[in-house]
Amino acid sequence: MTDDSDAPTAPPERTVVQNAELALLLEVTGTPKPGNVDRAHEYDDLRFEHFVAGAVGARPGLELAANGDRLGRAFERAVAGMSQQSAGNTQFGALLALVPLVQAATTGELSGARAGKIAAGTTVDDAADFYRAFEHVNVAVDDPPAGLEPLDVRRGAGAVPVLRERQLTLYDIMDRSASVDGIAREWTEEFERSFHAADRLLTLDGPVSDRAARVFLELLAAEPDTFIATQHDRATAEEASERATAALAGDADPWTLADEFVAEDVNPGTTADLTAAALFVALERGLDV
Amino acid sequence: MTDDSDAPTAPPERTVVQNAELALLLEVTGTPKPGNVDRAHEYDDLRFEHFVAGAVGARPGLELAANGDRLGRAFERAVAGMSQQSAGNTQFGALLALVPLVQAATTGELSGARAGKIAAGTTVDDAADFYRAFEHVNVAVDDPPAGLEPLDVRRGAGAVPVLRERQLTLYDIMDRSASVDGIAREWTEEFERSFHAADRLLTLDGPVSDRAARVFLELLAAEPDTFIATQHDRATAEEASERATAALAGDADPWTLADEFVAEDVNPGTTADLTAAALFVALERGLDV
Repeated sequence: MTDDSDAPTAPPERTVVQNAELALLLEVTGTPKPGNVDRAHEYDDLRFEHFVAGAVGARPGLELAANGDRLGRAFERAVAGMSQQSAGNTQFGALLALVPLVQAATTGELSGARAGKIAAGTTVDDAADFYRAFEHVNVAVDDPPAGLEPLDVRRGAGAVPVLRERQLTLYDIMDRSASVDGIAREWTEEFERSFHAADRLLTLDGPVSDRAARVFLELLAAEPDTFIATQHDRATAEEASERATAALAGDADPWTLADEFVAEDVNPGTTADLTAAALFVALERGLDV
Repeated sequence: MTDDSDAPTAPPERTVVQNAELALLLEVTGTPKPGNVDRAHEYDDLRFEHFVAGAVGARPGLELAANGDRLGRAFERAVAGMSQQSAGNTQFGALLALVPLVQAATTGELSGARAGKIAAGTTVDDAADFYRAFEHVNVAVDDPPAGLEPLDVRRGAGAVPVLRERQLTLYDIMDRSASVDGIAREWTEEFERSFHAADRLLTLDGPVSDRAARVFLELLAAEPDTFIATQHDRATAEEASERATAALAGDADPWTLADEFVAEDVNPGTTADLTAAALFVALERGLDV
């Protein structure tokens, strides 16, 4: 009565989309990541469980990216799904970094050059999708420079006619924001920091969540966080990086730093987004959990 | 230049499969769940991140259940995917509880009666799948009763010829285990405890992770955990339930109880599995995260 069908078949390997989702979950699992929600730190109205639901909800959008759908549309759907929890924005920046990387991984080789090329190939329709994504969640942004009010992202879909009139692609939008937004800069610089941080994740030893926390600190120490600069100012962002450097050097306790950043409302959110992107690249390159 | 297509479309609602995956993630997020891995408790070789990877990995199997595939096959694939992390078994029992519930939710109404009917409709092929699932992970089980050695689950696919010879369905296997395995009992009693716990999750207030921790304690207080009974003995399981009762009454601190259970190697794993099943039912019935 036995035949070959009685033998168990091999377990399924994680797909690119599963790795993207897992990256979002591992990012928030890593602790302490000073100033961010993580497994051991949360706020009354922005909790760990919201990030978990955000990661699960983002999946249909990530699948669109994996299937070669329009990048902006994939992003907008990922954000829409992510927003289906009660805390609002949890992973907007992380998803913005992930969608080109996911598409690179499923349509060819996952490299910075290829992801950069995909980013550069975006269209005006992608830009319109990007603006629409702001309709789903409140994202903390600065006022636009004088003269660029019609392109304020907070206008959401209302800015789309201006985008079409000026024929601005999503890459153009990222390029204009690269100096003030660390994720936009990844788009225009072949995701250099994400790939470098992925190398670090693969080089370090120990639990993945500890590696993620360490790489987060390294990223923060290396460059001021643009989200802190947006919420506070450049000086605050630079000081946060100096304090991260001290924590890495053993001159400060990262757990204490976490308490201090929360008390001061210093939130290195862009650095957390970069950590998620790095985790995805590392998982694709063989990081074992 | 604007038209209807410039307006954002509604966010996607979470699918049944997303809710099942989210339930697995919220279960391990709830803390303290004394004796179990959770957001604040882990072991050197069985960590929070393994449960996260297990939940993500289980998804293809959950999708088979949602698509009406053979229940045993869906379970075996879910376990195979779950096992793709370095800690081995993380959510075997939770997946065994979830697959009939997922299939009930996608093929009609999610009720205990319907899930019980699906369980009762399983075949010998489903039983063979179930045994194959044990090839993917080591699951702690007792020696079988005298005379039942040929059906020891630890034989994995090796037991399949005996299953076929005796024409045992997966429901038959669950029925024979119902007195010693709390999840098997759910299969044979229309998932009564899972649905009752789901009602509790919906009735309580506050963060979902706090509700999950509370309902875990309530389940443990109400009935001895069959996994503790397997690992230790019935008396240890009964004593653990008494201590959970004291924690619920405020006569003991759940965080202290968590430390004690870890020190004593008391692991109410079946109660955690029931909590995951309850979270799924509650999410399907509108539990907001």
